[in-house]
Amino acid sequence: MVSSPRAPLAPTRHLTSDCQIAMIDNMLSITSALLDELVAANRILFNQGILDAFGHVSLRDPDDPEAFHLARNLAPARVTAGDIVAYRVATGEALDAAAPQGYLERAIHAGVYRARADVGAVVHSHAAALVAFSVGRHRLRPVCHMSGFLGANGPPLFDSRDHPGADADMLVRDGATAEQLSRCLGDGSVVLMRGHGATVVAPTLRRAVFRAVYARVNASLLAQALPLGDVTYLDDREARASAVHESQVDRPWELWRQQAEAMAASS
Amino acid sequence: MVSSPRAPLAPTRHLTSDCQIAMIDNMLSITSALLDELVAANRILFNQGILDAFGHVSLRDPDDPEAFHLARNLAPARVTAGDIVAYRVATGEALDAAAPQGYLERAIHAGVYRARADVGAVVHSHAAALVAFSVGRHRLRPVCHMSGFLGANGPPLFDSRDHPGADADMLVRDGATAEQLSRCLGDGSVVLMRGHGATVVAPTLRRAVFRAVYARVNASLLAQALPLGDVTYLDDREARASAVHESQVDRPWELWRQQAEAMAASS
Amino acid sequence: MVSSPRAPLAPTRHLTSDCQIAMIDNMLSITSALLDELVAANRILFNQGILDAFGHVSLRDPDDPEAFHLARNLAPARVTAGDIVAYRVATGEALDAAAPQGYLERAIHAGVYRARADVGAVVHSHAAALVAFSVGRHRLRPVCHMSGFLGANGPPLFDSRDHPGADADMLVRDGATAEQLSRCLGDGSVVLMRGHGATVVAPTLRRAVFRAVYARVNASLLAQALPLGDVTYLDDREARASAVHESQVDRPWELWRQQAEAMAASS
Amino acid sequence: MVSSPRAPLAPTRHLTSDCQIAMIDNMLSITSALLDELVAANRILFNQGILDAFGHVSLRDPDDPEAFHLARNLAPARVTAGDIVAYRVATGEALDAAAPQGYLERAIHAGVYRARADVGAVVHSHAAALVAFSVGRHRLRPVCHMSGFLGANGPPLFDSRDHPGADADMLVRDGATAEQLSRCLGDGSVVLMRGHGATVVAPTLRRAVFRAVYARVNASLLAQALPLGDVTYLDDREARASAVHESQVDRPWELWRQQAEAMAASS
Repeated sequence: MVSSPRAPLAPTRHLTSDCQIAMIDNMLSITSALLDELVAANRILFNQGILDAFGHVSLRDPDDPEAFHLARNLAPARVTAGDIVAYRVATGEALDAAAPQGYLERAIHAGVYRARADVGAVVHSHAAALVAFSVGRHRLRPVCHMSGFLGANGPPLFDSRDHPGADADMLVRDGATAEQLSRCLGDGSVVLMRGHGATVVAPTLRRAVFRAVYARVNASLLAQALPLGDVTYLDDREARASAVHESQVDRPWELWRQQAEAMAASS
Repeated sequence: MVSSPRAPLAPTRHLTSDCQIAMIDNMLSITSALLDELVAANRILFNQGILDAFGHVSLRDPDDPEAFHLARNLAPARVTAGDIVAYRVATGEALDAAAPQGYLERAIHAGVYRARADVGAVVHSHAAALVAFSVGRHRLRPVCHMSGFLGANGPPLFDSRDHPGADADMLVRDGATAEQLSRCLGDGSVVLMRGHGATVVAPTLRRAVFRAVYARVNASLLAQALPLGDVTYLDDREARASAVHESQVDRPWELWRQQAEAMAASS
Repeated sequence: MVSSPRAPLAPTRHLTSDCQIAMIDNMLSITSALLDELVAANRILFNQGILDAFGHVSLRDPDDPEAFHLARNLAPARVTAGDIVAYRVATGEALDAAAPQGYLERAIHAGVYRARADVGAVVHSHAAALVAFSVGRHRLRPVCHMSGFLGANGPPLFDSRDHPGADADMLVRDGATAEQLSRCLGDGSVVLMRGHGATVVAPTLRRAVFRAVYARVNASLLAQALPLGDVTYLDDREARASAVHESQVDRPWELWRQQAEAMAASS
Repeated sequence: MVSSPRAPLAPTRHLTSDCQIAMIDNMLSITSALLDELVAANRILFNQGILDAFGHVSLRDPDDPEAFHLARNLAPARVTAGDIVAYRVATGEALDAAAPQGYLERAIHAGVYRARADVGAVVHSHAAALVAFSVGRHRLRPVCHMSGFLGANGPPLFDSRDHPGADADMLVRDGATAEQLSRCLGDGSVVLMRGHGATVVAPTLRRAVFRAVYARVNASLLAQALPLGDVTYLDDREARASAVHESQVDRPWELWRQQAEAMAASS
């Protein structure tokens, strides 16, 4: 399922070139409704405690799979439609050379989109309950019917220390490290990142948000259950059947969106 | 105490039939005040952290014990009077064939009402502290004077894996599985559901909400007390005497309702 | 330090009797400013998570040590000046025979005021972190410089099961059980009540609120510290010196009051 | 790195003396923008749960390294620009003899500024997760890429009991004890204080706030990770490289400031 990285597009600097115009068209191809969804995802993930001042959520362009949309370098709770920037999947660089500064780790998103044609949205978070499982030995296996997307054996762990090319600051900011991260993710939904957080993927934005929330819920549930002894995990059949719960994704989405809007209105 | 399931009513499709008119009458038999109570129960249970985007609360019709009232497929925090649908106890199907889509697990409510004539309200929740006890070995016994309704030995555990007919997705969506769940509940107030949550019952709506809240409070208290060693549980005499605390149910109800209304007003 | 209970006043029923007029005078002896303090204490203790729908706080009358002031049977967050009732220390009964229904456990307050002439205010709470220490073996000793009032050895534990006259529902509703509770409290500031909560006392209302909050803070701190191993407790000298921190009580009080008022204004 | 304490300035009492006028000039040397930052820091630290009614944050005067700015004795959430007082680094006393009452522990700030010329801001907090590590045996080592400022071996512990001159109430209120605390801090960013809290330092105010927040985040993460077994800590190379994350300090600062202002507006 891991596809080979696509060749990077030639860099363009001149606004009047045909190539650049095509890119501007690409930038406009995302509808205002979809932009609103991405802004809502930012605010929901903050409001649900998945993102704080750090972390980010992106959306692959529905019309151009070689592009994705991600906020500029800004805390997710503060993101509005005007802060969304179009990036190239091939390079992780902004389509518009004049775009504002991006997140240091936008390479994560680009890398996953390159590696996984089935992925439509990516969340990178530092949610505490997930960081804890990234540094402790115990495996984050699913204990709750909503979180079978973790896989019966739980998500893999990416440790930057195992990758000599990775920076000591543990950030994933270049294509090579992002490719190693994507390889670790494999065809799963979640990869834990040691001492750092998690990257969560899904075919759609709403499902990526759902998984980001329930990965955290499951981590918290398992941490509560472990002291009670002899934990029963979802078996493989249950983990796979759990996909049906994502058919209900609109129910939490509408609630979370309403909560996030109420919060925004009061701030 | 477990009564035999009632025979299902014949399905009706024609609005002009006498039978349908009776059903419409049934639908109207619930007073506006009672609808308000059920809406308040939805919001209280959300506000108290018992329900999130999932879970539901129902009320048996006070005039027709063969019917119950439950919201359509909607997050509890968003439920208004117009979202309440009348269902048949016999089948778990809406009285009105044109009713909007229902919760996947409304069978839980129908099954319990069929099995237990003494039950007037049912809460099905995914409260995290209860899910933890559903997957860990330690028994959820009462440690606090408010939660004797759990029974001195604590609630039974329903594991869908033990029931070959149950779906691997762990949902209870058919009458047969709901009957197995009700059998597991027996004449108790609470049944834990492995990797899923709990179902809580009571003679009245306010007491069902009270028990749903204090089941969670007790689970959280016990989790905090276990590391302290040698936990003292309520003995059988204390668990039975604890029923007196439910005579005070209006005190928390009025507070919780006020809090839920304040939350709704600010959103 | 435990003084003998005072003889109960003769019951009075006739509004026109001299005795009754004296009582009405007593009722009026509490100033409006002091009533406001007591209302604020109710709201602060709710807002700080010490009281929920249950628990209560009382104040001994500054002019008549034989009377105390306590809300009627109402959730603390909802208490206003009009809900405060004057009670007799001797009997725990309202001075005004026509007073609205009182808390089931007002005997706790009366009993402590009878036993301890130095006590000016009493908080009875069900704060979870304290209940956990009331049912687990580990002793609630002080670990933080603010909570030396717990005493270097920590508060005693009252277990209703050890007192044959106490009700199985674990409530303290009669003078005899309240006297046993007061004896257990001794000359301390806090007594834990097994499976129930704690009763906290102080010379002044603000200090009782301070101690109720920091008893909970300390319980939570100790629960967090225990898994870290080899906990260092305050020694006796430190516990006694900790009294100096209560000289700062106005700083948290003014903050907590402002927070409680903000909450009330938004509800 | 620990410089020797500077000689205290001669005390001044007469408003008309030249010396006093110089001091008033000093007091005015802090710009209104900087005062706003310090007020924001107070509110942010409260809103993030680092300070409650206690604890404080100070800023060294950018134009006069012998002075620092700190609120008067007031809960941080309630501090406004008018509550900021200028203090002498040398003595911990207010430049203006008529200044309102200061915090009992302002000596902590003065002592650290005397000992560390590189320190531009100091936070003293009682954050619970840090107090827990101050009384338990387990060392607070960094587990998350944001908290390398703790040092690979974690911060040192100051125990007032080891310092015969320190008060039994565990407060640091004199220069000698503050010097011992500063010696314990050494050239690090954080010193834990047994049963009391932590003191956090940085070259700038925003970084001191950042470190105060992430010291707490790391303590909470480590407490969650320990039960999972075999915790992986940042190694020395990673801890040192972590400094790069502080280049992003404006991102959380702007979010936290916005949140704190929203909170203030609703109160």
